[in-house]
Formats: sequence, C-alpha cells, structure tokens
Amino acid sequence: MPGDTSFQALTLDPAVQHMLASAKEKNMQTIWDRYQQMLPQCGFGETGLCCRHCLQGPCRINPFEEDAKTGICGASADVIVARGLDRAIAAGTAAHSGHAKHLAHTLMKLANGKVSDYKITDPDKLKRVASRLNIDTDNRDEMDIARDVAQAALADFHEKDTPVMWAASVVTPGRVKVLSDLGIVPKGIDHEVAEIMHRTLYGVDADPVNLLLGGLRCGVADLAGCYMGTELADILFGTPTPVVSSANLGTLKPESVNIACHGHNPVLSEIIVKAAEEMKDQAVAAGADRINVVGICCTGNELMERHGIPSCTHSVSQEMALLTGAVDAMIVDYQCIMPSVASVAECMGTKVITTMDICKITGADHIEVREETASENARQAISQAIEIFKSRKNKPTDIPQITNTVVAGFSTESIVAALAKLNANDPLLPLVDAIKAGSIKGVCLFAGCNNVKIPQDANYTAMAAKLLKENVLVVATGCGAGSLMRHDFMDPAKAKELCGDGLFAVLNAIGEANGLNGPLPPVLHLGSCVDNSRAVEITVALANYLGVDTHQLPVVASAPEATSEKAISIGCYAVAAGLPTHVGVMLPVTGSALVVDVLTQGVKDLTGGYFVVEPDPQKAADTLLAAIEERRKGLGL
Amino acid sequence: MPGDTSFQALTLDPAVQHMLASAKEKNMQTIWDRYQQMLPQCGFGETGLCCRHCLQGPCRINPFEEDAKTGICGASADVIVARGLDRAIAAGTAAHSGHAKHLAHTLMKLANGKVSDYKITDPDKLKRVASRLNIDTDNRDEMDIARDVAQAALADFHEKDTPVMWAASVVTPGRVKVLSDLGIVPKGIDHEVAEIMHRTLYGVDADPVNLLLGGLRCGVADLAGCYMGTELADILFGTPTPVVSSANLGTLKPESVNIACHGHNPVLSEIIVKAAEEMKDQAVAAGADRINVVGICCTGNELMERHGIPSCTHSVSQEMALLTGAVDAMIVDYQCIMPSVASVAECMGTKVITTMDICKITGADHIEVREETASENARQAISQAIEIFKSRKNKPTDIPQITNTVVAGFSTESIVAALAKLNANDPLLPLVDAIKAGSIKGVCLFAGCNNVKIPQDANYTAMAAKLLKENVLVVATGCGAGSLMRHDFMDPAKAKELCGDGLFAVLNAIGEANGLNGPLPPVLHLGSCVDNSRAVEITVALANYLGVDTHQLPVVASAPEATSEKAISIGCYAVAAGLPTHVGVMLPVTGSALVVDVLTQGVKDLTGGYFVVEPDPQKAADTLLAAIEERRKGLGL
Repeated sequence: MPGDTSFQALTLDPAVQHMLASAKEKNMQTIWDRYQQMLPQCGFGETGLCCRHCLQGPCRINPFEEDAKTGICGASADVIVARGLDRAIAAGTAAHSGHAKHLAHTLMKLANGKVSDYKITDPDKLKRVASRLNIDTDNRDEMDIARDVAQAALADFHEKDTPVMWAASVVTPGRVKVLSDLGIVPKGIDHEVAEIMHRTLYGVDADPVNLLLGGLRCGVADLAGCYMGTELADILFGTPTPVVSSANLGTLKPESVNIACHGHNPVLSEIIVKAAEEMKDQAVAAGADRINVVGICCTGNELMERHGIPSCTHSVSQEMALLTGAVDAMIVDYQCIMPSVASVAECMGTKVITTMDICKITGADHIEVREETASENARQAISQAIEIFKSRKNKPTDIPQITNTVVAGFSTESIVAALAKLNANDPLLPLVDAIKAGSIKGVCLFAGCNNVKIPQDANYTAMAAKLLKENVLVVATGCGAGSLMRHDFMDPAKAKELCGDGLFAVLNAIGEANGLNGPLPPVLHLGSCVDNSRAVEITVALANYLGVDTHQLPVVASAPEATSEKAISIGCYAVAAGLPTHVGVMLPVTGSALVVDVLTQGVKDLTGGYFVVEPDPQKAADTLLAAIEERRKGLGL
Repeated sequence: MPGDTSFQALTLDPAVQHMLASAKEKNMQTIWDRYQQMLPQCGFGETGLCCRHCLQGPCRINPFEEDAKTGICGASADVIVARGLDRAIAAGTAAHSGHAKHLAHTLMKLANGKVSDYKITDPDKLKRVASRLNIDTDNRDEMDIARDVAQAALADFHEKDTPVMWAASVVTPGRVKVLSDLGIVPKGIDHEVAEIMHRTLYGVDADPVNLLLGGLRCGVADLAGCYMGTELADILFGTPTPVVSSANLGTLKPESVNIACHGHNPVLSEIIVKAAEEMKDQAVAAGADRINVVGICCTGNELMERHGIPSCTHSVSQEMALLTGAVDAMIVDYQCIMPSVASVAECMGTKVITTMDICKITGADHIEVREETASENARQAISQAIEIFKSRKNKPTDIPQITNTVVAGFSTESIVAALAKLNANDPLLPLVDAIKAGSIKGVCLFAGCNNVKIPQDANYTAMAAKLLKENVLVVATGCGAGSLMRHDFMDPAKAKELCGDGLFAVLNAIGEANGLNGPLPPVLHLGSCVDNSRAVEITVALANYLGVDTHQLPVVASAPEATSEKAISIGCYAVAAGLPTHVGVMLPVTGSALVVDVLTQGVKDLTGGYFVVEPDPQKAADTLLAAIEERRKGLGL
C-alpha cells in the first residue's frame, strides 16, 4: 500500500522481507524505494489520458473538466485510451513472438547443420506439431521435418493469404469461425504489430471500438507467438514432465559458484546449464563445491520445468538475489530484467552479463551469445562467474535459509499422461467426469508478474487459496507460478490443507495412480509466460472433447499482479478465446468509460470472454467463481 | 506563439486567416483553440521523461530533482527518452510501409488478374525497378515482372537472410558498408518495427546508445517503406512530370460538387478521380457544373504530381476546407486525418467518408474501399457527395478567393529529363557543374508537416527564402511542399524574386532549354511524404556520379514544422544517409543530455549525418548553410 513501507506490507515472501531489511541496513535502494519516490504517480498516465503520438502534444485530458474533452487533433479520451492500450498489446506481442522467432531461427540453423550445441530433444513433439501444420512426417528425416516446421514458424510472422497457423490451428474450429467473423484472425505476427503502430499514428484510426478490435487481433497474434515459443522450446529442449525442485533465495549456496539465469529464452539458459556442468572442475579448482545454476523469472520456469533447476526468485524481488552477496553472475537475455540490477550488482561486487544484441544494460558486461558459438560464449560468461567467486568466496553472504518444495513440469502431455494412468483409453474422461460431478468446479489459470503496487504475492496467494478451497483446479505460469511456488502452493504435501475435498480427491487419485504415494501439488506449474499456451492447449482439448467452444467452459484466467505489457497481450488472447479474464491492477483505461465498457462488457457479445478489473483479491475470486458457476449452468452442470 | 491568438500569429496563410475569422464568427472550435486549451503542456512528456511501458508506472523523471533519477524499474532518463523515441520511429516506419504494403498488394492483385480498376501506367519504371532488384525483364510479360516486383516488395517486410532490398539497393555502395558496419541494415521492415517494440518493453534494452542504434536501423527500414511506396505508385499511376496546377482554398468552387481527397495512398484517390470523371453527368443533373476533386495533405501531393489536381490545403488547416461550407464530401484513407474533421463536417452539414478498415472515425461514414471493387466503392462515395451538394447548392459558401500557381511533378526522372535538354549525353553534368561553380551551393530538402505550435508556414517560408537567396536548390515534399506552394514558392514567376542570381540562372537555363519560356519554379515539388525517397534518389545519383558517398555532399534536410511520428522516422533515415537534418520542433528528447548529444553530435562519427534541433528559422537556415559550406570545403569546392 502506498505510504506503508513496513516490509510485511511490501511482500508476503519472508525471504524477500529478510532481504529488504538487509537492503535497509546496507542503505541500498530497491524497487520499493523507487516506487515510493515516484508517488504520486501521474493521474493522466494512470487513466490512459495522455498522448504523445505526435509532436503537437503531449496532450492530456482532464476527466473532470468539461472544456478539454479532446486532444489537439480532436482525438477523444476514448481514442487516446484505446490507442495507448493497443500499443501496449503490440509491445507484448512483439516480445513473446520475438522470443519465438529466436527459437525458430535456432531450429532452422539446427536443421541446416549450422549449430552443434542444439539438438531435437523431443522428436515426437516435432512430428505432432508438424502434423498439425500439415507438414508431411512420413518416412522423413527429422531434420527435414524440423526445417519445414522452422520455415512454417518464420512464415507466420509475415502477412500472407492464409492466417497465422500458430493461431488458427490451435483453437477450436468454432473459435476460428468466431475470430474470422470478427475479422480478428491475424495474418502475420509482425504484420499485426506493425499495423497496430500504423493505426495508432496521428490521424489514423479514431474509432475506439475499431481500435480495440485491432488490439484484440494483435492479441490473437500474441497467442501464436506464445504457442510457437512453447512448442519450439519443447522440440529443442524437451517437453516437461513432473519434476521435484525447489524455490526461493535459499537455493543460493555460499560454497558454490552461483549463477542466476534471468530472462526468458531457453536458447540461452539451456546452454548455460550444459556449459556449467562441463565446467564443474574449474569451479572446484577455484574453491567451490560446484556450479549452482538457479533461475529468475521465466528463465527460472523454463529451467525448472525441464531440468528441475531451482528458481531463486521472481519479478519484483530480482534485486534481492544480488543483495544476498552470493550471486557470482547474473546472466540475462531479455524481458523483465530491471535495469537496476546492474547498479545493485556493482555495489555487491558482482556482474550482470547481458547476452543479446537487443538487450544491453548500462553498467553490465556484454558477451554476445550466438547459436553458432553458444557453448563457447556460455563458457566465457561462466568463467567470469568463477573469477567473481574467487574474490567473493571468503566474504560473508546473507542468504535467507528459506526454500520451498516445488513439483513442476506440467505440460499438456504430462498431464494427459498422468490422467492416462486412470484411464488409458480415454485420458480426458476422468478430468471431465470430475468437472461434471463438481469435484472440480472449473479451472483457473494464474499468469503474469508481480507488481510493486501490490504487496508481492498477496493477490496470487489470496485468490489461489480461495479458489482451491472451492475445488477449482488451479494452474499457473510465469511469475504467477513463481509467486505460488514460493508459498508452497506447488508442494504436494500441502494439497490436503489447501484444496477443497473434491479437488483433493482428484489430485490424490491421479498422484496415487502415478505411483507418487500422494497427491499432485495443489497448483500445477505449466511453465513460463509463453507457456500460457499450455493453458490454451488444455482448454481447447477439453472443449473439443466435449464438443463445445472454449467460451462455454468453466475456465477462467487471472493476472492479479500484472506488470509487463506482455500481460496485457496475454489477457487479450484469453478474452479472444472466450475466457473471463481478471486483472488485479488498474489498466490505463479508466479515462474512457467506453473502453472500460467494451473490455468488461461489450466484448462478451463478440468472443464470450471479457476483462474483470478488480484490485481486491477476495472480490476477484468471488467474481471468477461466479463466472465458473455461470458457465457450469450453461453446460447444464 | 502560446498566448497570442491573433490570426496572423497562428498562420501565415491569408486564406487560413480568413477562415479562422469565419470560425470565430461561427463559434466553431479549431485545432488552434484546442491547442490553447491544452496549454500548458506536460513538461514530462515534452522532454520525453515519462514512461508508460509497464503497469508499475507511469514513471516520470523530474530533471531538476537529484533524488529521482530513474524510473521504478531503474530505467534512467536516458533509457526512458531513447525508448520513447524508438517507439515513435517504429510508428512512423509502420505507417509509411503500411502504405507501401498496400500498394504492393494492389500490384500483386493486378498481376494476378484480380482487379480491373488498376493498370501498369509506367512499364518502363516497372522494368527499371525490376532490374535494380535483379528481377529478369528480358522478353517477359509485364504482368509477370509486376508479380515478381510485388513479391519482392512483400518479401521486404519479413526478416530474411538478405537485407531489405528497398534499402540496400537504393543507397550508395559505400553507404551499404557504413550501415552494415554499424549493424543497422534492416532485415525486414515489419521485423524491425516489431523488434523496436520488443526492445522497448519493460526490462529489455537499457542501453540508450544501443536503443538509438536500433531506432536508426528502423529508420533505414522507413527509407525502404517510403522508396517502395513511391516506386510502386509510379508504376501503377505514372511517374510525375512537370504539371501546372494551383493550391489553396480558392480551388474550391461553389458551383461544383467539391470532393476533398485527404490522406495518403493513391490506391484510393486515383480511383476517386477516375470515378469522378465518369460521374460528371450525375453532378450536372444535380445542378453542379462538374465534380471538383481537390487534395488535402499528401493525397493532394499525389494527385497534383500525377494529374495537376489542385491542393486545397494542408496539415493543420484541414478543418478550414470544411469551414468554407463548400466541401460536399471529404473522402479519406489514412494518416494525418484529424479526428476533429468529423465533428466540423457534422456542423457544416457535410460528410467525412472513411474508406479503410484501419482508419475509422467516430461520427464519419464508412465505405470500405477494396481494390477488387474500387470503382464501385468510389462511385458510392461520390454519390453521397452529390447528394450533399443537392442540399448545399443554394446555401452560401465562404471560400477565400486565394489560389496560388504551382508547377509540380518533379520526379527524379523528370528532373533528369529536363537536365538532358542541356546535355543529352550526360544530364547530371550541368547540375554538377553548377554545384562546382557555386551557382548552386547545395541542396536542401524540406519535408514534414505543419505544427500548431508554430505559426503555420512561418518556418518553411523563412528558411526557404533565405536558402534560395543563398543559391541553395530547394526541393520539398509532403506538407512542406504544401506550405511552400501556398506561398508561391512553386510559381516560376517568382523565381527571379526569390532566388539568388546563380540559382536563378540555372533554373532559367533549364526552363528555357525545356521550352518553358522562363525558369523552373524556385522550389521543386518532389511529391508526398513517401516521396522523400525521390530526394534520396537524387542525392544518391549525385554521389554515385561524383564517386563519393552521400554524407560528403552539400545536401541537407529540414522538417521545420514536424508533427507526425513519420517525420521522426524520415529524419532518422536522412541522418543514416549522412545528411545534416534540421528539425524545427523540440523532439521529446531534451530530458536526456546523452540522447541529445548522440543525435546531434555522436551519430556524426557513425553515419556522417546528424540532427540539428533549432526552433528559430533564421538560425536554422544559417546552420544548414554552414553545413553546406563545410561539405563544399570537404569536396574541395
């Protein structure tokens, strides 16, 4: 809460509370300090009522003043708000799909024999994806199939007569029709991003509803970027299967060379992990017991779901990892890397190493990591970490001894495989039966970030606790997964305590059938933020199984502590898919009653989905429960 | 000037002054009123020091306060400013290239026999462009060549291993190396736009110089969009040749059905012109003498350069056309169409008709114009104008009787053809000789918009007057051309009065050699804003002729009254090409001394070009003259 700076009011994570006390002692500034210094925040920006889209501006509309209803060009508050929202969607889409494009290039280079550090780890998934894209797989060399899949992926970025395949082929047939009728099937991912930038230019689109429909189309392009990102990563690095791991700052080890991989794309982090294994001897020679790679933010999710590598922390608390004094290098690629990490690292005598040409940070070291020379580049970065360790090893560290047990790695495939242990011929049937019987009322996806405006993890934990008790199956991605894992929501030992009886019985039955001698964890970890695609995949599978469309299912989504523009574009595709979609942070749209109305009401008539903007987690959970109940009724349940 | 609202202080155009008085009488609000109401403008936005790129913000940096030097994430003022500028460049690039992509689709549909309202008007240009793109032209069907050119154009939008052809093939060989060495050769136009949106996301690029280099690469992609836009328009609708026309509000005729075509893409306006000719009888039957099509903004330039159709007005004065009461329909496509036109039209009892799905305006009528049904759609729109005329014809109009004579239509081809009359074997030689002899000191391109912050046309006219007297050859595009034409700078009769002796002698010699019985106009009209490509083409031709690179030439550019983000992206490619590039409006970058320094100084070491931000037109002209003199010295002149 603004004004209240006691550590408990800033974060629910005791490890982070510990580090905040430590930061205070060290007189080091953190994101929470910078937030306090930024208050009061600009009300025009908060409501979306400022515009800098031309050099006649900046314009700002005072919502309380009758006389200044439009910008200099005549753009109404509605237009200004819708344009601003559209550009945020475009940015989110560009980021997810930039990540996916990077993977597509890696796959292409692999298929063309240009790289030696990558391989096809899941050839079955390669073939499944290829088949869905109508790429022939019969008796073909794996690399030929991979080349065609990579080619199809790259083709999805530019405008073409056919729709974006990673959007049109991943939703229900009914949804394709819904989106087509609305004219919001994307033609090319980059094309949609560029078109948003065009239509939001001075003197182009000045119809707020038209602008919002354009934004929604870009949001569907974001689904394609995410889905492609997940699938290509699974093909290259393996499709996740359940794995036991741990989270929180206690995963840092004073006696190890600690490398925090931060960012998003496994194209980098997978190589760091491999090189770190190979360089163990050098670390030992330097006096360490080993190299301890941990993840931060979505890189943490990517490494955890595929390798069980611990997640050190997430989102707003990323500086805390450095403040322990135990991180020898933070190696980053892109997205959600606060520029402040470079200065915190400098104060702590360690290094942030950037690796991508589109993401450099003033004050950080840069080692460009290219796929062709990935191992060599990774070794160079790790060598730096070992050097830092040498001077760090005899200094005290301040690591809060807090770790949380996590069972992660729930891909669609691994969920279906687990269900198959209950019914090998019809794996979805037990889940559908549980939903029909009401032992599972519905499904809620938690996605998104932490946000410094909200006590870290407060909304996630409050909402998840309530929904689980009401027998809602909860799945989570990104820093939402990170939040819940740091509060034991992914610890199977907590299932009994956290879940309602019906849900617990299902989780337990699946766990027992899979030889776990206990339940699945209360919240299923679906992976990183691109892995929201897995939630779509499961939802679509359920809809197809039941012969309905996704907007009819008792499935809801929530980004209760959203920060990144990516969360906005994800929200748009959730709404386009027909889901009631909660956001716990005020979007910069409240300056336009019309935009608010379209997002929260009007769009319902178009896609069946809609936004729920509600800062109070209890109320938000109630609203989502009501939405689930409404949909159950619609299905006659 | 803020505060001074006498009409003379708002615009130098007497026709606009007249209409402002009329607006006051009618108690109608104009852009100048809205500007006054917006004052004071937000200082954070003006300096680029606010950021809304994530939901933790908005952040704003007080440049006078020591304690708040970064945003909540730790982004410095430098990063925030550079990110904001980059997004503006991306928007400008997306707009120009969206226009070009539209033309590429039209050409493709033509080649594939899908449209009947379009044709290849300049087959020679088609072949020249094809040859430059290494497309075979020998003994091939025109439509096959057109298909390949359209295909190459569409391919330039997506990332590929080869550079964007419309960028790499249109600059000097030396410039390709300069741009390659800097890593700023674009890989795909839409790709670059999307990459800017990715790298400016929360937690991605936090190195201001890296961000600016990225912006510069996107600016080079904008060159490609513009160049493609010009070339494809020339192929489809004809390459301009000198034509006599007229400008200003006096081109509206009370007794005619007046249709104002406003926006940018000749894909629309060419069809309106054709349909208007065919529908003359209907207009006469309705009591009109004819259908009078006039242009506004760049559509005005496109129609004028190819057909001699008058330009009614430009940029900030677009509402004035409607206030005359004589416009029966304003038919628009996209870009620079102030949303306010819909409400002005409503008050005046006329219609604004939008035609493109990405540009609707609340309060306007929408008739979707598709290439496949273009004539039919155009006739529908014109029918509406005729209907409006019927009820308007007996009402008084208020048309200021001011028109300016304009000789327009100076494409590279027509300039070379005119020079060929002096030296058929070596057409560039007379121009080069004039430059060497100092009768032409250098060349200045005026481009960009009007901006309500500056008395309309004040900077253009002051600067052009000074440069012409100093024997600088002045060329102009877009609303810069619009401005100068409304002040007689494109009237050959004014050449003697406006130009220095040396320049006049050259313009006169060319005019006489071409049978004009007098000089060329003092300022050469190169066309619309995409036609800044023509200025690049001429500059590159001169550099190649002299065996130097473009940054060595005494060629400068100026956008003295810039408004659109397009002006920023154009400025970037002028700087990338090596030109001293003046902007007469403060860019939102003054919050970062580093960004200002890179744009105005540092980049000089990289590309040879640089920005000059100078609001005073006299000082700006002096600075450009000094730059021309410096470059002349560099060439030993």
